[in-house]
Amino acid sequence: MIYFCTFAKKKENLRAYNYLHFIHHSFFMSTHTTLARIPDSSLPRIVIVGGGFGGLQLAKSLHNVAAQVVLLDKINYHTFQPLLYQVATSGLESSSIVAPFRKLFGSQKNFYFRLAEVQQVHPEKNELTTSIGAIRYDYLIIATGATTNYYGMADIEKYAVPMKSLNDAILLRNHILESFEAALQVESHEKTNSYMDFVVVGGGPTGVEVAGALSELRSHVFPQDYKELDLFHMDIHLIEASPRLLNGMSDEAGNNALKYLKQMGVEVKLNTGVKSYDGETVTLSTGETIKAKTLVWGAGVKGSPLNGLKTESIVRGNRIKVDEYNKVAGHDNIFAVGDVACMQTAETPNGHPMVAQPAMQQGVNLANNLKKMIRKETNLRPFKYFDMGGMATVGRNKAVADIFGFKFGGFMAWAVWLFVHLMSLVGFKNRFFVFINWLSSYFSYDKSNRLIIKK
Amino acid sequence: MIYFCTFAKKKENLRAYNYLHFIHHSFFMSTHTTLARIPDSSLPRIVIVGGGFGGLQLAKSLHNVAAQVVLLDKINYHTFQPLLYQVATSGLESSSIVAPFRKLFGSQKNFYFRLAEVQQVHPEKNELTTSIGAIRYDYLIIATGATTNYYGMADIEKYAVPMKSLNDAILLRNHILESFEAALQVESHEKTNSYMDFVVVGGGPTGVEVAGALSELRSHVFPQDYKELDLFHMDIHLIEASPRLLNGMSDEAGNNALKYLKQMGVEVKLNTGVKSYDGETVTLSTGETIKAKTLVWGAGVKGSPLNGLKTESIVRGNRIKVDEYNKVAGHDNIFAVGDVACMQTAETPNGHPMVAQPAMQQGVNLANNLKKMIRKETNLRPFKYFDMGGMATVGRNKAVADIFGFKFGGFMAWAVWLFVHLMSLVGFKNRFFVFINWLSSYFSYDKSNRLIIKK
Repeated sequence: MIYFCTFAKKKENLRAYNYLHFIHHSFFMSTHTTLARIPDSSLPRIVIVGGGFGGLQLAKSLHNVAAQVVLLDKINYHTFQPLLYQVATSGLESSSIVAPFRKLFGSQKNFYFRLAEVQQVHPEKNELTTSIGAIRYDYLIIATGATTNYYGMADIEKYAVPMKSLNDAILLRNHILESFEAALQVESHEKTNSYMDFVVVGGGPTGVEVAGALSELRSHVFPQDYKELDLFHMDIHLIEASPRLLNGMSDEAGNNALKYLKQMGVEVKLNTGVKSYDGETVTLSTGETIKAKTLVWGAGVKGSPLNGLKTESIVRGNRIKVDEYNKVAGHDNIFAVGDVACMQTAETPNGHPMVAQPAMQQGVNLANNLKKMIRKETNLRPFKYFDMGGMATVGRNKAVADIFGFKFGGFMAWAVWLFVHLMSLVGFKNRFFVFINWLSSYFSYDKSNRLIIKK
Repeated sequence: MIYFCTFAKKKENLRAYNYLHFIHHSFFMSTHTTLARIPDSSLPRIVIVGGGFGGLQLAKSLHNVAAQVVLLDKINYHTFQPLLYQVATSGLESSSIVAPFRKLFGSQKNFYFRLAEVQQVHPEKNELTTSIGAIRYDYLIIATGATTNYYGMADIEKYAVPMKSLNDAILLRNHILESFEAALQVESHEKTNSYMDFVVVGGGPTGVEVAGALSELRSHVFPQDYKELDLFHMDIHLIEASPRLLNGMSDEAGNNALKYLKQMGVEVKLNTGVKSYDGETVTLSTGETIKAKTLVWGAGVKGSPLNGLKTESIVRGNRIKVDEYNKVAGHDNIFAVGDVACMQTAETPNGHPMVAQPAMQQGVNLANNLKKMIRKETNLRPFKYFDMGGMATVGRNKAVADIFGFKFGGFMAWAVWLFVHLMSLVGFKNRFFVFINWLSSYFSYDKSNRLIIKK
């Protein structure tokens, strides 16, 4: 108690003393060591790498397990990726689609978070090399998700804006707004136009939603913001290599999305790829060129596995091959869930779609299996994916949905989309703030977070 | 109308056509040129540099004047500085204390915003050199505000965290949270402590409010977030060179603030200056040293005038000498308002306090005088400062206020502080979101925006 006395004397204040006395007891007791590494324990240690949908769900589902649950992530918050595009297009503030891990797990006694980047896994000694030193594990779960796939095109990687992280979204928002500020400064029509023209690559949900949101900025927000510009010259191009949009969904969904985008004045090019981009000119597979200062890249993702796994466990799309229990091929106590995991079954020869649902469902199933493993039970349950369907929104009152086999669009799909995304958001305050944002935007036609925030 | 037809053809879509037809007409007409510089006009041009409290109020008050009102700022939003400290301490999201200029002035016909940094004023040719080229003015209003004053101490400037802009606040928030994450990694008590100890320099409102907010993080948030750390070792020091806190306010206010801070376990050192800081160790004027990884600098500001003004017009504190009409000494059509303006009167020999009130009142008065000048009227009204008093908050239910001569503290002052700041916020949505934030924080004792957001 030596600290205690010195501290109290130092404070020379009774109330401070009492209050700190309380603090001291309640927390000195709760930890075996005042040093700050993960406390040693007789309990098995489950280390989860990555706090996306899969890792988060897994950690939550382990709340009642007699184990140390350690979550490692290189950022300190969970990101609700489906709404990133609304941050990028000034519809939502970044803070309302993220939630700090320590806040989410504040009350979970067996949980430890560490802000760390994992450099390498050493299966032979059950240890990770990380930016904060070596971390031992009994069970390792890789939930590192996916990263943008540029398919080896260095120029695209250099000049395009991706849409995978909160930083990407803020970067794109800055880029869009700065382009319009810049458009006010240049003297030639051609230059002005190239600042006002946007090329979105990839006809998946991200591409469709970004293109739609840009069109709403053009019709409802920028005319007011940039009176001196002739918005007549703002072109939005959506480029998709395949013959249709939203390949993950039904033909009806793809066709409706296409119809809505055309109604909103987006120029959609199907069966068209991107050959090159130098920051000024986009060259398409058709040979056609488009002058645009902004190219948004939503054309693909690939798994981002850890270094140190057996080579045979990395398969197509840079994903990790796992069995029906999410166990990594060739390892006994290493598992993978979510986008990075590729579970090749009869129904899913190329693994599950790289979206939130399979990740979260795998998290729950793996949590139950880990409980059994720790209790030395053998009746593990194989993963069964329950596909609830997919949704994408294009604009106000315009969305497409395939849910439980029902295919529908328009206002109904849009309402369902809003409701489902609102309910899926982490944290009541986030749900409330996003709801208010959407409500006010719906009636005001405004997107109010038009901030260029940068160092 | 050549664009129009090609465009319609290009879109090949009737609804897009119609809607763009509408856009085209409503906006093509509203501007004389499709080129994007500030339109030429026979109206006099009033150029305002800086969109802080003074510049914003001035531009708003000029809404009904037959002139071009041009606002230049190097960021695209107005910042409500009094609440920066709550962003820095995770209490508020950054987006709720800022408002994009273009949103604020969307409906003001005579208003033009340009994202630009002003490099130099050329009074002889009524022109500014800026990052976006030369800009002509008939009347120039300098509202460039103040910047952090390190009093020439290079080491402080290098290692300390200032509290003047939104970026500063986000930087400080990152710094505080990263320090605690780092505290979890180091092995020696001494190191751990230096990450958990904070030195706040300057006993003005900023310093008092930051120190108070840090104490609330210590008592209500970090115990939950950092179970493995012994918060008993988190020290908060507030260093003030003068014999009392809150020099701008009454003795009662200063004494109450001191009392509250001590109750909250903040170690306040009066009559003490800071000699040096190397990022690890703070050396005080008393010779005492404190090991701390974080030093928050709220010890002073200085004016940030423009280059190119007559030397005699720059006075004490790097401010611009103005007469009772806010006209800059030695210039006829150049004015200064707010922190950067130093109006030396009998009551204010050193100019007005560098806070929001005088800035906004000067903005209103100058706007009225400019209207008269444009109408060639001579009955200009000299500026009279109406001091409503001052306020500072220390913690929940703990604030001090001197309002209209009444001096009071505690819950009452705190409630008034909340109300006044809420009402002064720009934009209804901001007010609403801040209100909800404060409400939920009050009952949950939580500060929910604990995000480390960085490139």
